[in-house]
Amino acid sequence: MTSNKLTPISKLGEFKLIEHLTKNATLQNPSSIKGVGDDAAVIYAKDKVTLVSTDLLVEGIHFDLMYSPLKHLGYKAVAVNLSDSFAVNGQPKQIPVSLALSSRFTVEALEELYAGILLACETYHVDLVGGDTSSSNKGFIISITAVGEVEPSEIVYRNTAKVGDYICMSGNLGAAYLGLQILEREKQVYQEMASMQPDLADYKYLIQRQLKPEPRHDIIDVLQQMKVKPTAMIDISDGLSSDLLHICRQSEVGCRIFETNIPMHPKSVEIAKMFQVSPITCALNGGEDYELLFTVAPEDVKRIEDIFGIAIIGRITEKTEGYKLFTSANQSFDLVAQGWKHL
Amino acid sequence: MTSNKLTPISKLGEFKLIEHLTKNATLQNPSSIKGVGDDAAVIYAKDKVTLVSTDLLVEGIHFDLMYSPLKHLGYKAVAVNLSDSFAVNGQPKQIPVSLALSSRFTVEALEELYAGILLACETYHVDLVGGDTSSSNKGFIISITAVGEVEPSEIVYRNTAKVGDYICMSGNLGAAYLGLQILEREKQVYQEMASMQPDLADYKYLIQRQLKPEPRHDIIDVLQQMKVKPTAMIDISDGLSSDLLHICRQSEVGCRIFETNIPMHPKSVEIAKMFQVSPITCALNGGEDYELLFTVAPEDVKRIEDIFGIAIIGRITEKTEGYKLFTSANQSFDLVAQGWKHL
Repeated sequence: MTSNKLTPISKLGEFKLIEHLTKNATLQNPSSIKGVGDDAAVIYAKDKVTLVSTDLLVEGIHFDLMYSPLKHLGYKAVAVNLSDSFAVNGQPKQIPVSLALSSRFTVEALEELYAGILLACETYHVDLVGGDTSSSNKGFIISITAVGEVEPSEIVYRNTAKVGDYICMSGNLGAAYLGLQILEREKQVYQEMASMQPDLADYKYLIQRQLKPEPRHDIIDVLQQMKVKPTAMIDISDGLSSDLLHICRQSEVGCRIFETNIPMHPKSVEIAKMFQVSPITCALNGGEDYELLFTVAPEDVKRIEDIFGIAIIGRITEKTEGYKLFTSANQSFDLVAQGWKHL
Repeated sequence: MTSNKLTPISKLGEFKLIEHLTKNATLQNPSSIKGVGDDAAVIYAKDKVTLVSTDLLVEGIHFDLMYSPLKHLGYKAVAVNLSDSFAVNGQPKQIPVSLALSSRFTVEALEELYAGILLACETYHVDLVGGDTSSSNKGFIISITAVGEVEPSEIVYRNTAKVGDYICMSGNLGAAYLGLQILEREKQVYQEMASMQPDLADYKYLIQRQLKPEPRHDIIDVLQQMKVKPTAMIDISDGLSSDLLHICRQSEVGCRIFETNIPMHPKSVEIAKMFQVSPITCALNGGEDYELLFTVAPEDVKRIEDIFGIAIIGRITEKTEGYKLFTSANQSFDLVAQGWKHL
């Protein structure tokens, strides 16, 4: 909150509120013909195909306003959506943003949220092009659609991995999940003793990964520079296990990955142990890291194996070989998909 | 509900649930390159521009499951979104559908909802191309994005009405609002005496307009056949007053409309009187009729004035003349915008 003077939303009304919040949303992309202000946004990407993906963020499920600053929340809501465009090797260009919110929100709170939304738009060169703002009786929901573009020949789907391909990923895993555990713990401490000021400096990296994830557009750029087109790709939103299984099942192949090759930040390993959970479990099932998981043909692997921030974690196998994780002790386990934990 | 055997969603899990619900979603449009099943839907409309619009439907705000059958709700959620594509003179082609739902929903309930969604897709030749399914702690939310296409030269915006243009609209107004009043009244009666079986036959038209609105693609088609391109257009979702004011303010013009020219169904007039509200108030502020409001250049008006289902309700004037409604007694009133009533 940047001001002490708080304005109820009802003072502005629906139309003025939207005008107020989107007045800084200038259009950066030539393909954005019409943004906010009409019944539909208008987009023109000559000779390219249009990508559309959508995500809902629900209060109490995907975020907790007790520890998610609204500016971070706005940034994250955009970031996780853009990640889907990158995951098909495309470039996100436009986002309509829809909100459902209750009257407990003030105009100033929404200004914070939009500051985060617009910061993410700036960072990733994306235009805010409309949406819908609605009320809710309870709870806060953000629904964002990412509209992207890609040359038709450059699209990378999930269902095109081939036996023998190398399984690669960007960055490291488990940090976002462990950041969430830290925040949940601090929330409990705070609820018991409101006077306690938590010292979170030591956990900064993990908390940042949870509250302000960055989708990996840089990896898309690097792969393009190296002229490597992945054979299949997905972003790791549900956890490595679930997302690798999406690739394998849709491609009708198996996989073999190696625990020792799966990158984790030293802080993630340390904090996993502190919480008495196995680090590899956090990497496999933690989710929300928004790293890219992709497969690369054997002839291309040489060109990426030395790239900092890309790890080769296994191989695609015949479907009959199943979905296997090999531990450092060379024991093998079946990978299992984790979906929702909420219903 | 078509079955007595109810399946908790948790029995299927997230991924199987989506697979189950979307298995009948076949792609009808050549521009739908990839639908459900990857990180993003892929769309290609050569030489056309892409239209993107989005709407949230929130339980307790936009619908009440006590009187909205889930199949109707699914149909309506799609219909109101498609209306936005028609309102810029475009054709909707694809929809991603996102849901946030609590564990009180069963698989069978969602099957009903999707039956309605897919029926609307069939009726309007639109493809379901993915989305996001999430849980919520409480309440049910549907977020739909309509992706459409239009020849660049055919787009009709809100901000291009000219002084002297005729103001036209399709269908009739107020019915959806009055249908809602009937449903609300019956809900109260039911809550007081659960044994009462309401007899709603007499209100069928109004209730249908509320629960199963049909966006006016037929008007778009007729205008095209008559080679009339409106100078500005919007769909009437918030009420005639609000939506006409959007056109006028964005076009920097005034307007003059005539009460006697505003079409209402005889049943709407009758039921408005029964509720002791003025019929014209329902027409001006009722909302949710999803008719099209458009302006037509004077030289084009001859070609549409005899079309059944299109009414000419007034003229665009200089901005300085303001926004006026003339009653049958030739009194003039200022039109006032109504936004949300909820915050």
